[in-house]
Amino acid sequence: MEHKIGLIGCGTVGQGLLQILHEKKDYLRDVHGFEARVVAISDKLKGTLLAPDGIDIPAVLAMLGAGQGLAAYPHAGRGRTEPLDPLDMLERTDAGIIAEMTYTDIKTGEPATGYIKKALRLGKHVVTSNKGPAALHYRELRDLARQNGVQFRIEGTVMSGTPVFHLAEAGLAGNTITEVQGILNGTTNFILSKMETEGMDYGPALALAQKLGYAEADPTADVEGFDALAKVVILSNVLLGGSLKTSDVARQGISAITKADVEAAKAKGLRYKLIGRAKLEGGAVTASVSPRMLPLADPLAGVMGAQNALSLQTDLMGKITIQGAGAGKIETGFAILSDILAVHRG
Amino acid sequence: MEHKIGLIGCGTVGQGLLQILHEKKDYLRDVHGFEARVVAISDKLKGTLLAPDGIDIPAVLAMLGAGQGLAAYPHAGRGRTEPLDPLDMLERTDAGIIAEMTYTDIKTGEPATGYIKKALRLGKHVVTSNKGPAALHYRELRDLARQNGVQFRIEGTVMSGTPVFHLAEAGLAGNTITEVQGILNGTTNFILSKMETEGMDYGPALALAQKLGYAEADPTADVEGFDALAKVVILSNVLLGGSLKTSDVARQGISAITKADVEAAKAKGLRYKLIGRAKLEGGAVTASVSPRMLPLADPLAGVMGAQNALSLQTDLMGKITIQGAGAGKIETGFAILSDILAVHRG
Repeated sequence: MEHKIGLIGCGTVGQGLLQILHEKKDYLRDVHGFEARVVAISDKLKGTLLAPDGIDIPAVLAMLGAGQGLAAYPHAGRGRTEPLDPLDMLERTDAGIIAEMTYTDIKTGEPATGYIKKALRLGKHVVTSNKGPAALHYRELRDLARQNGVQFRIEGTVMSGTPVFHLAEAGLAGNTITEVQGILNGTTNFILSKMETEGMDYGPALALAQKLGYAEADPTADVEGFDALAKVVILSNVLLGGSLKTSDVARQGISAITKADVEAAKAKGLRYKLIGRAKLEGGAVTASVSPRMLPLADPLAGVMGAQNALSLQTDLMGKITIQGAGAGKIETGFAILSDILAVHRG
Repeated sequence: MEHKIGLIGCGTVGQGLLQILHEKKDYLRDVHGFEARVVAISDKLKGTLLAPDGIDIPAVLAMLGAGQGLAAYPHAGRGRTEPLDPLDMLERTDAGIIAEMTYTDIKTGEPATGYIKKALRLGKHVVTSNKGPAALHYRELRDLARQNGVQFRIEGTVMSGTPVFHLAEAGLAGNTITEVQGILNGTTNFILSKMETEGMDYGPALALAQKLGYAEADPTADVEGFDALAKVVILSNVLLGGSLKTSDVARQGISAITKADVEAAKAKGLRYKLIGRAKLEGGAVTASVSPRMLPLADPLAGVMGAQNALSLQTDLMGKITIQGAGAGKIETGFAILSDILAVHRG
């Protein structure tokens, strides 16, 4: 079955998705009976491309890779580039699935939330890797999707393509999840790992993370726990049925942890990890982000480097832990694909 | 939606399933729109019960718990107990889903394979926790299911309810899996863990496992790697598209590993684990079961005690690891339920 797909945002994640759709085209058709026709792309910086017959993915990737905007699209007659806003693009495309991959604004969730609402109201499925709308407006968007008979899917918002929501939805269906606990930020886990395994202090470990591209020039969102906090809010509201706001979650980052702290923990057989935790108790959900000293036997203790992991406490299966990448161009592009394939399966 | 379910085999796993269906009845209806009516049970030792209106689950569990057979079922008019063979039961029931939970015979796969074939030919979905049919006849049974427009599902055959097949089928769909590597036997992992963390030698660690009920009086199937081997064959054939026979897999158990071996590994920063591994290379699948010394940074190295875990190497997501229970009455009962819910989702 062929699906018409529209992209809002075509930065790293969008280009990762396009690359996968192109390179795995035959596999997806043969194994999953899935065919994608990308009919629209709208990006704030790169412009808008409408191509009802489907874009030439390699041509678009080459253009974007060369720093050109979508106006450079050379296939006369096959596409139309205009300075359209994503909201206008949504009205002009017959794409049935919209992949929303714009930048996260964790304070307002905009402009992404507006794009998503409009797409859902137009009866289009929406899949997103954007933490803002999921952390701030999950219930509203989920309900809006239901009212319009479409899906709103968010696999890429927490651990990129490591499939926490698919795991809960399919493999663990039937379980009541009572608690989640995870390493939700790869940058801080990289820093803590370097502090322990190579005896580095916090400053040099952060500098190394910045040098390797794991941390931003302003590392606040990672090291002070804001990124993990947004993810804990999403997990709480999706998996535990909570209705938390970001301001409901206690937050402490790792910037005050010293080499001496890490070594003292190690001497006691413990290991520092920045843990996002949410718990359902007596009908109420509480959540926090804070550094914790874990015993080495905890499944999260062995997660080293930039990896992410999540433990789900369930009533029937006890604790289930999943570990994998938490970021990356292809990994997050795959998260979007995995949600599109879920729409495809119906 | 209500599903009529028939059970073949009503030992530990079957009773675990019945317990879950009863205790989570309201949850399954409210959250998943799923209702189960158990209309038939056939067990070699306990007899056969046909109850088209649905059995009284607590009454049956109480009878079986008291060591009584199904002939003791007291609800006159609601059920009929006869000395029927499971093959006859299949012809007499209108159950649309058959849960096959008889004892594993890894040499022949019988009589379970015969039950499964008959059920599939009658157009009934089959879910099973039995390693025999899955290890010996997976492709044939899968194809037979397809021909009859029904599903053949086997989540419980490898890691009980820890959802390796759901993970591959839903969350990782779109990935090509090139290698799997796992701790697939809880008994041997318990023994190796005790040898390392408490300095026990193999014999006393095995004796402790037997005392705690993790190991059988004849521990051969576990400690010589036969149980893990069957699971590796299933993983190879389901996830990697192989067509291995059990005799194609090199096998070595843990009975020759000494306390000195474990300590020598530990001194080098390594840890012994019994690893089942299967690899797809150049179109061919090869597999083995053997003790390996893993670096502590390997996600499998931290898996201690009777837990199981599996790492899947994929093209888009790199390595994804899932860890959880690998056995248990409720856990394996849940595996069956998870497959029934997959049939319910359609």
